[in-house]
Amino acid sequence: MAEKHTLLLTVRGYELDSYNHINNAVYLNYFEHARWEYFKALDLMPSLTESELSLVVTDIHIRYQREVKLFEELIVESSCFPEKPYLIFQQRIIKKSTNLPAARATTKLIFVDKEKMARDIPDGLLKRLK
Amino acid sequence: MAEKHTLLLTVRGYELDSYNHINNAVYLNYFEHARWEYFKALDLMPSLTESELSLVVTDIHIRYQREVKLFEELIVESSCFPEKPYLIFQQRIIKKSTNLPAARATTKLIFVDKEKMARDIPDGLLKRLK
Amino acid sequence: MAEKHTLLLTVRGYELDSYNHINNAVYLNYFEHARWEYFKALDLMPSLTESELSLVVTDIHIRYQREVKLFEELIVESSCFPEKPYLIFQQRIIKKSTNLPAARATTKLIFVDKEKMARDIPDGLLKRLK
Amino acid sequence: MAEKHTLLLTVRGYELDSYNHINNAVYLNYFEHARWEYFKALDLMPSLTESELSLVVTDIHIRYQREVKLFEELIVESSCFPEKPYLIFQQRIIKKSTNLPAARATTKLIFVDKEKMARDIPDGLLKRLK
Repeated sequence: MAEKHTLLLTVRGYELDSYNHINNAVYLNYFEHARWEYFKALDLMPSLTESELSLVVTDIHIRYQREVKLFEELIVESSCFPEKPYLIFQQRIIKKSTNLPAARATTKLIFVDKEKMARDIPDGLLKRLK
Repeated sequence: MAEKHTLLLTVRGYELDSYNHINNAVYLNYFEHARWEYFKALDLMPSLTESELSLVVTDIHIRYQREVKLFEELIVESSCFPEKPYLIFQQRIIKKSTNLPAARATTKLIFVDKEKMARDIPDGLLKRLK
Repeated sequence: MAEKHTLLLTVRGYELDSYNHINNAVYLNYFEHARWEYFKALDLMPSLTESELSLVVTDIHIRYQREVKLFEELIVESSCFPEKPYLIFQQRIIKKSTNLPAARATTKLIFVDKEKMARDIPDGLLKRLK
Repeated sequence: MAEKHTLLLTVRGYELDSYNHINNAVYLNYFEHARWEYFKALDLMPSLTESELSLVVTDIHIRYQREVKLFEELIVESSCFPEKPYLIFQQRIIKKSTNLPAARATTKLIFVDKEKMARDIPDGLLKRLK
């Protein structure tokens, strides 16, 4: 079963856009940040960096639910499961003060080799995610 | 019928990530950039900025198809149509040298007033998009 | 005398560039982030946002001293003092694990009104910084 | 003598910040973008990428002179000269419509090898810059 990972972060001043809230790309950055922290928390970074493979995003779907302002505290929840040959991340951003959702995302990733050919999920990772 | 808008751009040095290609957020920036240029090309900026309404993204779905490298020339094609009360943008990024697709995106936007309540598409814009 | 403010942060995955370390603009973001946190920590945000004035950067000088990698923990130290009509921030980024400097910056800011004319530092802020 | 390089660019929608103009980091991106284009225009990219050396920034000093708004057309002028073992870039951003300066920057770069040790400017590049 997928392990759930929780990350706490606070909106930074330079992340605001002309509407005075964080813009679309910043949510995407938060989701990516949480995926890296997920791999780190599960101690999967060594197997990712030592392998000859790269993990690349093929699809991302973000639903924006609420605007987010300066200094807001956010919780990013991430879970990951295999859907061979893809890895699927389900993530959501929740406002800490109200527990209301700010955004959610589904991201599909695949391992590719140096010739950019799709490859299976490495066994070590597969075992760890189950 | 939706008007099609075409934007040409070249990948910049500071947009590369640790895989030495542009990362996910940069594609999203390119799509947003092309949406602004779309509104500008159709002379819709005055009606957007003078109105009391803000146009916010509710959904974005990006499919990444090919990696993109430094100095590559890209074509961003955008078309927009109303799906009341939403505006829908269909966009794709094509590599100019090979005509191969690099990414495509569907983005859903809605007008909101100062209380963040959803509002209809302004008539002037609706007429212009038909 | 200037109060010193300390901020702890960890390098995020999406902040890496093609050399696999954080690039120049990310250091600048960290310094800006720390200046916002400085104003927040000293409870100066209300006086900044309620005033009719904007605080804008006129000069920034960054000296890059060491490269910074994924997941590194960094300390950003900030102090601020008035040099009428400017505010001067002296900041440095230190690697937490080794206590070695990664970068330092001097940033000069000025208050401007809605016509972009330079204005004096508001008295409340001036008093608070002494 | 240093060759002067000129780059034309237009401000993009996603580059605006909460003051509704481009923020400090965007100017820095523009200057970096222009340096890459400088190397490309002088056909120096092959010697940079084939060499075992990396070119890293050690100092950047930006003076911000005027705010820059959405869709403004900007000219970035760059010249580069050796100051052994450093490369020095002198750059400025000018508003195309008024010819008024928006910012200027001095950037100091140095070549480092894989052990991050400073190295001389490669002869081929040195010859090209004189």
